[in-house]
Amino acid sequence: MVLGHEAAGCIVKVGSEVKHLKAGDRVAVEPGVPREMDEFFKTGRYNLSPTIFFCATPPDDGNLCRYYTHNANFCYKLPDSVTFEEGALIEPLSVGIYACQRGGVSLGSTVLICGAGPIGLVCLLVAKAMGASQVAITDLSAERLAMAKELGADLPLQVNRGDAPEELARNVGSQAHVTIECTGVESSIQTAIYATRPGGVVVMVGLGSEMVTIPLLSAAVREVDIRGVFRYRNTWPMAIAMLASKQVNVKPLVTHRFPLEQAVQAFETTRQGLGVKVMLKCDPKDQNP
Amino acid sequence: MVLGHEAAGCIVKVGSEVKHLKAGDRVAVEPGVPREMDEFFKTGRYNLSPTIFFCATPPDDGNLCRYYTHNANFCYKLPDSVTFEEGALIEPLSVGIYACQRGGVSLGSTVLICGAGPIGLVCLLVAKAMGASQVAITDLSAERLAMAKELGADLPLQVNRGDAPEELARNVGSQAHVTIECTGVESSIQTAIYATRPGGVVVMVGLGSEMVTIPLLSAAVREVDIRGVFRYRNTWPMAIAMLASKQVNVKPLVTHRFPLEQAVQAFETTRQGLGVKVMLKCDPKDQNP
Amino acid sequence: MVLGHEAAGCIVKVGSEVKHLKAGDRVAVEPGVPREMDEFFKTGRYNLSPTIFFCATPPDDGNLCRYYTHNANFCYKLPDSVTFEEGALIEPLSVGIYACQRGGVSLGSTVLICGAGPIGLVCLLVAKAMGASQVAITDLSAERLAMAKELGADLPLQVNRGDAPEELARNVGSQAHVTIECTGVESSIQTAIYATRPGGVVVMVGLGSEMVTIPLLSAAVREVDIRGVFRYRNTWPMAIAMLASKQVNVKPLVTHRFPLEQAVQAFETTRQGLGVKVMLKCDPKDQNP
Amino acid sequence: MVLGHEAAGCIVKVGSEVKHLKAGDRVAVEPGVPREMDEFFKTGRYNLSPTIFFCATPPDDGNLCRYYTHNANFCYKLPDSVTFEEGALIEPLSVGIYACQRGGVSLGSTVLICGAGPIGLVCLLVAKAMGASQVAITDLSAERLAMAKELGADLPLQVNRGDAPEELARNVGSQAHVTIECTGVESSIQTAIYATRPGGVVVMVGLGSEMVTIPLLSAAVREVDIRGVFRYRNTWPMAIAMLASKQVNVKPLVTHRFPLEQAVQAFETTRQGLGVKVMLKCDPKDQNP
Repeated sequence: MVLGHEAAGCIVKVGSEVKHLKAGDRVAVEPGVPREMDEFFKTGRYNLSPTIFFCATPPDDGNLCRYYTHNANFCYKLPDSVTFEEGALIEPLSVGIYACQRGGVSLGSTVLICGAGPIGLVCLLVAKAMGASQVAITDLSAERLAMAKELGADLPLQVNRGDAPEELARNVGSQAHVTIECTGVESSIQTAIYATRPGGVVVMVGLGSEMVTIPLLSAAVREVDIRGVFRYRNTWPMAIAMLASKQVNVKPLVTHRFPLEQAVQAFETTRQGLGVKVMLKCDPKDQNP
Repeated sequence: MVLGHEAAGCIVKVGSEVKHLKAGDRVAVEPGVPREMDEFFKTGRYNLSPTIFFCATPPDDGNLCRYYTHNANFCYKLPDSVTFEEGALIEPLSVGIYACQRGGVSLGSTVLICGAGPIGLVCLLVAKAMGASQVAITDLSAERLAMAKELGADLPLQVNRGDAPEELARNVGSQAHVTIECTGVESSIQTAIYATRPGGVVVMVGLGSEMVTIPLLSAAVREVDIRGVFRYRNTWPMAIAMLASKQVNVKPLVTHRFPLEQAVQAFETTRQGLGVKVMLKCDPKDQNP
Repeated sequence: MVLGHEAAGCIVKVGSEVKHLKAGDRVAVEPGVPREMDEFFKTGRYNLSPTIFFCATPPDDGNLCRYYTHNANFCYKLPDSVTFEEGALIEPLSVGIYACQRGGVSLGSTVLICGAGPIGLVCLLVAKAMGASQVAITDLSAERLAMAKELGADLPLQVNRGDAPEELARNVGSQAHVTIECTGVESSIQTAIYATRPGGVVVMVGLGSEMVTIPLLSAAVREVDIRGVFRYRNTWPMAIAMLASKQVNVKPLVTHRFPLEQAVQAFETTRQGLGVKVMLKCDPKDQNP
Repeated sequence: MVLGHEAAGCIVKVGSEVKHLKAGDRVAVEPGVPREMDEFFKTGRYNLSPTIFFCATPPDDGNLCRYYTHNANFCYKLPDSVTFEEGALIEPLSVGIYACQRGGVSLGSTVLICGAGPIGLVCLLVAKAMGASQVAITDLSAERLAMAKELGADLPLQVNRGDAPEELARNVGSQAHVTIECTGVESSIQTAIYATRPGGVVVMVGLGSEMVTIPLLSAAVREVDIRGVFRYRNTWPMAIAMLASKQVNVKPLVTHRFPLEQAVQAFETTRQGLGVKVMLKCDPKDQNP
């Protein structure tokens, strides 16, 4: 199976009915393409369509390759000022955008992000861009938190395995309007609930085990809503607008680059947890950032 | 401590600054009165205000008595066409209104209600009044389900202790737009999540134990939101409007009546699980329905 | 050009990729079908897509004929309990549903409808089904208001050409949460604004002249929002659910029926303003209601 | 009558029941204080309460004076990092916050602001802080537009009296998601409607004459909503959070300062249209910015 669902590239050829793109256009690829015009698609929630095509989700092949065919309606033209790498990063950025939208992050929001991996970091970038006044972020790793601080986190908080959720929540002030949980770890989900203020929202981004034990009563009586996200929808246009206007800077997320020929080494780098995003450069003639 | 938080009565005396009420007016009493003008009150979510006064919630006394003083702003004038009993029932009705609002019940909604006790029944009445096209309701008791059917339930479903949540969910079609969980029982909460369609909402009304094990992953990736309710807010005016226009009929909920002097017997009736609502009549001269 | 955009009928043949319908199925036809997967379609607002196909909107032909081909995704299966006439009436009903949705009609809403023609009447039916506690409706014609009263209007109000808008508004109490303007007449739009309470909504359904003079300052400082509707979107499934569950009764709207051969006479009836809806029966073998 | 409704200062004395403030605290003053616990206040829309107290709105006195008494619930503590001048500027900033909220400005929004006076400029600052990707702003004055450019406007557009609204709209691209009209001038309101994309919003901030002639049909059929604002509500806490976290910089708005003794000269400066905001310094010992 072909891997890959974070991609940008150059149009080689378009179908006869495609009007908005032509050969030579630079585009970013949205990997999810609904196959049926069902109730989800018609109501703008196409990410929930059960028959959706999604790159590199079996049995659908991905786009980590030199030539790839994709539905033109889900290829978005990049302005000259947005690089291919930024175009590829729209995919993880979209996770952050959608998570912040689902959480209702807005002007003056106090946000807590659990986990400072790549997804936690894009949530951080987006939350700030949407006007959050304070973003706290937790992680086990001091190194990741240092990166988060560089990217704008107001309150990086190192946590330890075994910390008591209620105590951790108290330490962050228990006053988040929106908590974005990016780890999927049970104790972190518990912390997320305790750390959110009455009337706030916990967004579930990290995926853990099917059954989880949580302080549901505490969430319910304080009206802390629990909302999941399934990928994203309708985020590419706004992501491109944000990148073009320089209001979000995703470039520091790319810490490693490899030509496609060294893909194994690239995956090995990721497997070892080195850096943040490892970029595979498929065009032998263009290995630029 | 004085019990009671579902009450209606006649004004005997008002403070010097009260303009909208006068002695002789018939009113329904909203038992929660915010004490501080905090951020919750100012944003219209006064039910979440941590210092709120609430009838019969220690240390605050309730209103199950002949004479009682209450903040005039939370006493609502009843039109002649609305009886005192209906006025008192606005309290449980408010739980149903607020649960349906939080769930986003609207025209054509498919609704599942877990539990056919008094709260489940008011949720049923309100869901139908808000335009739900199909309301399924579950309970252990055939008798309660019969009552639900009389009140308009489209699909009463008897369940048994030990039923598997996923199987139960399949039996109700797993297609609820909104599921209102009124039991607080872990297996029922699990069923509620499985039975709700992607993009739907589970409203947590029933209160169980603090820690609950739930299929959170299933909820998250299908974007089934989990929302609690803490009592209600701003429901009295619309409840009175609905009762006055006869669009909701709560009268069948009252199955027993006792004069205040027989309060012990009344509580005993409730304790034995007989009927739905047991009404205590505080005015010796008016024991009418 | 073929006229007609309110239709229901029987499937004769389906394309090879159609799975949800088969020959013999009874369906209602949604006349608007988006042609492009543009931002409007992707966000669930396909009615705003500038290239949408719409029955009987030049240059697109309509469906007032015996055989007609339509996008299967916009044909909705009717349950046996819903008649073809009800199926055809889903189109005007959809205008009412969408207008009430855009206005935010909900439990306990006070609604004012300006104009008791077919569209005003479906708005009335839907507003009641969504839980409005009081619906006032205005018209020049006593006859139309009598029909409105039969269909559930709480407050039918006869108005006269030349009535002063502010005075008319005072007469209806100036307390509507939602006002649905179905006439398009300038003075009625003015009345709609004055008659709506602070924080309420005026929905513009009736279409009049391009430039209109309105008390915009009164609307703005009282935060009375002015919202238009362009046809409807995503209303067929919920309309079918409502008709199947008998929560909305559109049958009384059909006051005249003609076989297709007498189409000229049918249009003449409408032109003379007789009755409410005039139904054309295209199947010579089925002229039933 | 005492003027003034944009103020910050130091607490001298508090009432016996005030707990969140004490003498010596630095606070910003929200000038509107609801007097009655009516439906508007209870639902969080206290700005619409008809009996609200508002500084310098007859018959209520304002706070342009050395000592002033105000409801403690509407005095908000300033952190040390926020100056008194910033505190006073929260009032105009609140107009911008509320206008952007009502318009639904969010990540990637394209915003058009009509009028680059003080209110247009705060709308600009807030729109960018909420994630707008492009903000266009119009004005008659090149000087004001230069200031707008400095404050972050992406597209400053000089307009002329007599410009045709439809043509102007075409010049700005007719693609605004949100247009914020700050002039109250009829032709500008018309431009605002034409310049907004289908499904967008026009926010009416500027106040002009009561009756206005607008292309209501164009707004209605393209579902361009028209929403007014009456002052603001619940904006002080988030404004303070934004100022404390340096995400909005209002300091450049203050172009002139005068001691209270030179108030006449200060008002004369404003009357002549010089600068943006003219600050009156009431504390003879503290004339600092």
